[in-house]
Amino acid sequence: MKKIINDPHNVVPEMVEGMTKSYPQIIEKVAGTEAVVRSDKDSMNGKVGIVSGGGSGHEPAHAGYVGEGMLSAAVCGQVFTSPTPDQIYEAIKAVNQGQGVFLVVKNYSGDVMNFDMAKDLASMDNIPVKSIVVDDDIAVENSLYTQGRRGVAGTVFMHKILGAAAQQGASLDEIDALAHKVLPNIKTIAVALSAATNPEVGKPGFELKEDEIEFGVGIHSEPGYRREKIRASKDLVEELIGKLNDEMKLDNSKKYACLINGMGATPLMEQYVFANDVLNKLNEFNIEPAFMKIGNYMTSIDMAGISLTLLEIQDDKWLDYLNYPVKTIAW
Amino acid sequence: MKKIINDPHNVVPEMVEGMTKSYPQIIEKVAGTEAVVRSDKDSMNGKVGIVSGGGSGHEPAHAGYVGEGMLSAAVCGQVFTSPTPDQIYEAIKAVNQGQGVFLVVKNYSGDVMNFDMAKDLASMDNIPVKSIVVDDDIAVENSLYTQGRRGVAGTVFMHKILGAAAQQGASLDEIDALAHKVLPNIKTIAVALSAATNPEVGKPGFELKEDEIEFGVGIHSEPGYRREKIRASKDLVEELIGKLNDEMKLDNSKKYACLINGMGATPLMEQYVFANDVLNKLNEFNIEPAFMKIGNYMTSIDMAGISLTLLEIQDDKWLDYLNYPVKTIAW
Repeated sequence: MKKIINDPHNVVPEMVEGMTKSYPQIIEKVAGTEAVVRSDKDSMNGKVGIVSGGGSGHEPAHAGYVGEGMLSAAVCGQVFTSPTPDQIYEAIKAVNQGQGVFLVVKNYSGDVMNFDMAKDLASMDNIPVKSIVVDDDIAVENSLYTQGRRGVAGTVFMHKILGAAAQQGASLDEIDALAHKVLPNIKTIAVALSAATNPEVGKPGFELKEDEIEFGVGIHSEPGYRREKIRASKDLVEELIGKLNDEMKLDNSKKYACLINGMGATPLMEQYVFANDVLNKLNEFNIEPAFMKIGNYMTSIDMAGISLTLLEIQDDKWLDYLNYPVKTIAW
Repeated sequence: MKKIINDPHNVVPEMVEGMTKSYPQIIEKVAGTEAVVRSDKDSMNGKVGIVSGGGSGHEPAHAGYVGEGMLSAAVCGQVFTSPTPDQIYEAIKAVNQGQGVFLVVKNYSGDVMNFDMAKDLASMDNIPVKSIVVDDDIAVENSLYTQGRRGVAGTVFMHKILGAAAQQGASLDEIDALAHKVLPNIKTIAVALSAATNPEVGKPGFELKEDEIEFGVGIHSEPGYRREKIRASKDLVEELIGKLNDEMKLDNSKKYACLINGMGATPLMEQYVFANDVLNKLNEFNIEPAFMKIGNYMTSIDMAGISLTLLEIQDDKWLDYLNYPVKTIAW
């Protein structure tokens, strides 16, 4: 393992320290935790707080999305490990302005359990908390760490949409309703060229041959659905959009947002080539996405690979939310 | 070579197509070229155009910095190959609004020659053009492809400062004077964990052992100044800031901007840990950067490694320019 780190067991606190000290105008640490909160808390007055988080290793998620117009706080667990309920609870308390707090949770058993426990702690404190569990990964039905489908890159669309709604003054009930309307319309699928190396483990989560790829891999090196030889980008796109189409029934009378997400070690060169193939393939359906984003948004440490997310936009307001200005490190 | 591409010889056009079609509200292609220009050209009226570019493989540089408040156009050469004079000339013509055009060139012999030839072509057309050659890499004095020092990540600070000045209505002479004042204050140094693989070549530009790093490597796999075993992030920082200090004489009565730049395959996890060590080390000099930026800004395809840029801010206006809002894909 060749990494720019110090003690492999101290990566998360050092990373959180690095982020918060580098961007003090945007984020700060919640004292005594590895949770990160907007440093302009005063301007959150009267607004619902949006809190997300999970295991670390997905940078810039989730702390990179904390800031005006997006998340109010993000809780950073150890690498690929859910944050503890008390840390989540501290983040909830830090952002609660009396209007309640909404939690965006990716569907992993540990996250679901710990965010639920934090919700219980908050309700004992009379802080109204609601939540959504994002399960956008269509690759497999159940997986390591997950009952049902996994939560992956599409979660960032959820952060963006709910964050904009909260910024514009939506109530906790309105945000809850919005989240549940958006959720079934976000679908993601990925392909991996290599696995992530968790610094605490010291070796890759799985091995692929020199010319091999795996479709449907998760963001913690969970198994996908098929291994085969590497193919041209446009063939990968054919496979991935085929799967998304099976699930979503692409329809040119609908509008779509599209997120192309690098997994950490995938150069932007490849992401832009892939984007071109995605747009060409969607064009065969007479679809031109109403919103596009390409880059490293929900990574898996140093995994090489890419994910493709489509969101079917059921309401033009969602598009306004996606385009709403934010002040974050990474959106 | 395992990459998400189609024909290795067609990467640049497909990438440029992918970028421009994904972000039509920000950029568009100059017809018949691989140059990218602001799609809101009308709002450039009466402003000096700022044009940069160079070989591809440094994404998001340079096209990712085209947009309101930053570059007017970027010319995308083949991978690690200077764009041709006629392509640069087309970009100059596309952005000229009668106030002239300023070129930001990284110091590589091919770039310097081709941007100069484009300048000559423009002057025959009575378009006033001035330029700066950025040579911020302090690692070595001469290098492959370069007489003098190489131009690397610090170039992005030049783009940002000049772009903001142009947006605010600075004249060509004012931009030229500003560029030459800023230039000697930008210094960069890098460390590599692995080399880039140019898709047209198919194998890495050099080989490092499993536990080996090289200080001072360039962004086209040019040799650095020392190989040794990988060390802790804080030891790398010690070395790199030591070199920068030898060059710049760090002084806590001065203000600094800092850019921490991933080389393409370096996860943000490592970049944030490194950032923490940089801030700790600068703290020993009683320096807290007035401006920080961390991410993949001037990459070397899929190289693992990191560069550290410091800009000594001689005028608070430079800080305002760095903070001035932009509408680009990647700043």
